[in-house]
Amino acid sequence: MGTLRDLSGQELRAYRAELSSRYEKIKAGKPNIDMTRGKPCPEQLDLSLGILTVADAGHYRAVDGTDCRNYGGLEGLPEARRLFGEYLGVGPDEIIIAGNASLTLMHDVLMRAMLFGVSESEPAWGRLSEVKFLAPSPGYDRHFAICEHLGIRMIPIDMDENGPDMDAVERLAAEDAGVKGIWCVPRYSNPTGVTYSGEVVERLAAMPARAADFRIFWDDTYTVHHLTDHPKPLRNILEACKSTGNPDRVLLFGSTSKVSFAGAGLALMGGSRKNIEFTVKHLFYQTIGPDKLNQLRHVLFFKDMAGIEAHMKKHAAIIKPKFEAVDEILARELGEKGVAEWSHPQGGYFISLDTPDGCATQAVRMAAEAGVKFTDAGATFPYKKDPRDRNIRIAPTFPSLGEIRLAMEVLAVCIQLASLEKQG
Amino acid sequence: MGTLRDLSGQELRAYRAELSSRYEKIKAGKPNIDMTRGKPCPEQLDLSLGILTVADAGHYRAVDGTDCRNYGGLEGLPEARRLFGEYLGVGPDEIIIAGNASLTLMHDVLMRAMLFGVSESEPAWGRLSEVKFLAPSPGYDRHFAICEHLGIRMIPIDMDENGPDMDAVERLAAEDAGVKGIWCVPRYSNPTGVTYSGEVVERLAAMPARAADFRIFWDDTYTVHHLTDHPKPLRNILEACKSTGNPDRVLLFGSTSKVSFAGAGLALMGGSRKNIEFTVKHLFYQTIGPDKLNQLRHVLFFKDMAGIEAHMKKHAAIIKPKFEAVDEILARELGEKGVAEWSHPQGGYFISLDTPDGCATQAVRMAAEAGVKFTDAGATFPYKKDPRDRNIRIAPTFPSLGEIRLAMEVLAVCIQLASLEKQG
Repeated sequence: MGTLRDLSGQELRAYRAELSSRYEKIKAGKPNIDMTRGKPCPEQLDLSLGILTVADAGHYRAVDGTDCRNYGGLEGLPEARRLFGEYLGVGPDEIIIAGNASLTLMHDVLMRAMLFGVSESEPAWGRLSEVKFLAPSPGYDRHFAICEHLGIRMIPIDMDENGPDMDAVERLAAEDAGVKGIWCVPRYSNPTGVTYSGEVVERLAAMPARAADFRIFWDDTYTVHHLTDHPKPLRNILEACKSTGNPDRVLLFGSTSKVSFAGAGLALMGGSRKNIEFTVKHLFYQTIGPDKLNQLRHVLFFKDMAGIEAHMKKHAAIIKPKFEAVDEILARELGEKGVAEWSHPQGGYFISLDTPDGCATQAVRMAAEAGVKFTDAGATFPYKKDPRDRNIRIAPTFPSLGEIRLAMEVLAVCIQLASLEKQG
Repeated sequence: MGTLRDLSGQELRAYRAELSSRYEKIKAGKPNIDMTRGKPCPEQLDLSLGILTVADAGHYRAVDGTDCRNYGGLEGLPEARRLFGEYLGVGPDEIIIAGNASLTLMHDVLMRAMLFGVSESEPAWGRLSEVKFLAPSPGYDRHFAICEHLGIRMIPIDMDENGPDMDAVERLAAEDAGVKGIWCVPRYSNPTGVTYSGEVVERLAAMPARAADFRIFWDDTYTVHHLTDHPKPLRNILEACKSTGNPDRVLLFGSTSKVSFAGAGLALMGGSRKNIEFTVKHLFYQTIGPDKLNQLRHVLFFKDMAGIEAHMKKHAAIIKPKFEAVDEILARELGEKGVAEWSHPQGGYFISLDTPDGCATQAVRMAAEAGVKFTDAGATFPYKKDPRDRNIRIAPTFPSLGEIRLAMEVLAVCIQLASLEKQG
């Protein structure tokens, strides 16, 4: 039928009536679908059931004899640091494994930064008149929430298919000593699905930064979460930082929340020895040590990177049809209407959709009223304000295929209704 | 033979030579014994082996159907909050269960206090010219370390057999708005073994505090860790605080580190609804949620308080002979010498020993040189400074009975040599 803009007044009225009727019909069926969160589905969690019992009465010691049931060891179990160092692209002594949520590691780095700074030689950020972070957007709401909570002012940076707009990043980092960091989800970025290009990684590592304690928060949370057999490679940021003389610039984060269990995985933090030592020095005041048994479970279950990669292929087999269903329904419903563009990610947990300007809030609200919840419009931007009110994050992994198909139909109807309303 | 002070010059010289000879003989045997840390021994950890496999492919859901493998739930699993609320003496909605180390919960409360305060209506502590904490001493070195790290000035408070010197506590809390809190290990206090009397608990709850946001850090870490069948009861501090109109004054902490696994237990924080809500609001920025599988494991394994109490009797059966061995050797070696007094705790993890003034550092150093490590003298006081240099903390749970006997013999010899040296 072509784009909505090409319809005549009469055609428009008829089509709008048709959409309204579809909307009311779906709503009357009282669906209850949650598309808000990047959560693994039960079938994905089933893949790791073996991890629950792999540590047992005969298996609680580390390779070096450490009794994992007892206290000790701030950095993590040596064999876990070896395996997950490789996972994160850092050496076994360049990683800390602690807790079950990488969000905690990021949050705690920033809490410490406010009170103590990020290195011995630089001041506490809380003593500065203003601290700013570069926030490639759309991005991850939980990153932005920490900054807002701590009073760190975020500067939105546009994202394109290669990553953040590096001209803007370089200019701001070089000019402003108050710019202390940047949030990056470099692989299958949340929500756009972009993997940073080699050039972007190199420029991030090499660019002059006015703040000597500028830090890249490199949240490589989807590092092995491919939906394709031939993933676009991601340049190693720590190596790039070392080779450009900025070894301490990057802090890497990752977790197995979407590899093993979302609530009971391992959280990882990587970086130069200087950064690791600084962190361990502070960790001493915070904990007696991490849950080594859970680290041991992961090593016993996955064994090596080949084991993790084989495991991730099973994840992909479960969730790829869900991503395809989103794309199929969106193409069917919106393909030629000129009211939406969406991403075709090769991995990660999200599809990012842009409506015409000013329509996202209305579309998400209407979908919610019909019983289908999407992430709040705006949530993917700093301060929850999408300047163009157009971005909607779609999280297809948790619901069933049937739910996803219905949810996308609802969304397509709502986007069209919102667009027509905006068109007037 | 009576006290060392009563010996004649000649007797003294002979006795000192005998001690020196014993010391050298022991040292020549090159013992390697670590009495520094309150760590459970392997036999204690074996008691909980069943916990490792109690959650499995058929048991990963909470009573309300929650899939414990997935994200969600900041406060902890409902059934875990019920059980460990009872454990801590608070209601199921007055507890947060998070992570594996209660030290983390305490540290994080103080980090937040510095940046945000401890309630919506009071300022961040970091903005005040000085923050002070009352530090009953001897006490737990890790408590003191957090304060020192954060620049919170500690004021030592004497401990007696009923708890902290309440006259001093009341005076300082009433006079000084900079006094924001007090550290308490109310049951089997680390290291003195004292359980606070009912009067001390009542006075802590009821005393006027100049700072409206004064907080009692109630680290009830040994709450079920009895060595007797008839433990001295401890008055419920949260109830006392509520009944005196100070419901938000106390933050309770506990853990199962010395119930289940020292590295993989549950950490608990209790308090009024207002305190819990404030904490959860901040936790949102720090985590997606705790490891619910480990909480489920604990509930499935222990079932109820009767299960925990029965389990703790098995712990007592293992460690009580170790406490008795310490007492036996100390009594045999030092009983009438007038150079040491030590505690006879009815629970907990430590025996506290006082040498004559000025002898602890020397005795601990000599023992270390002979191959037996004790906690550094001074460690049990703020800033690691024991004003009388007399307190030594003995941690008898981890070493074997044979090691303990030898270690105590070494300590007894070293204390006598240090005392004789001091006597001149």
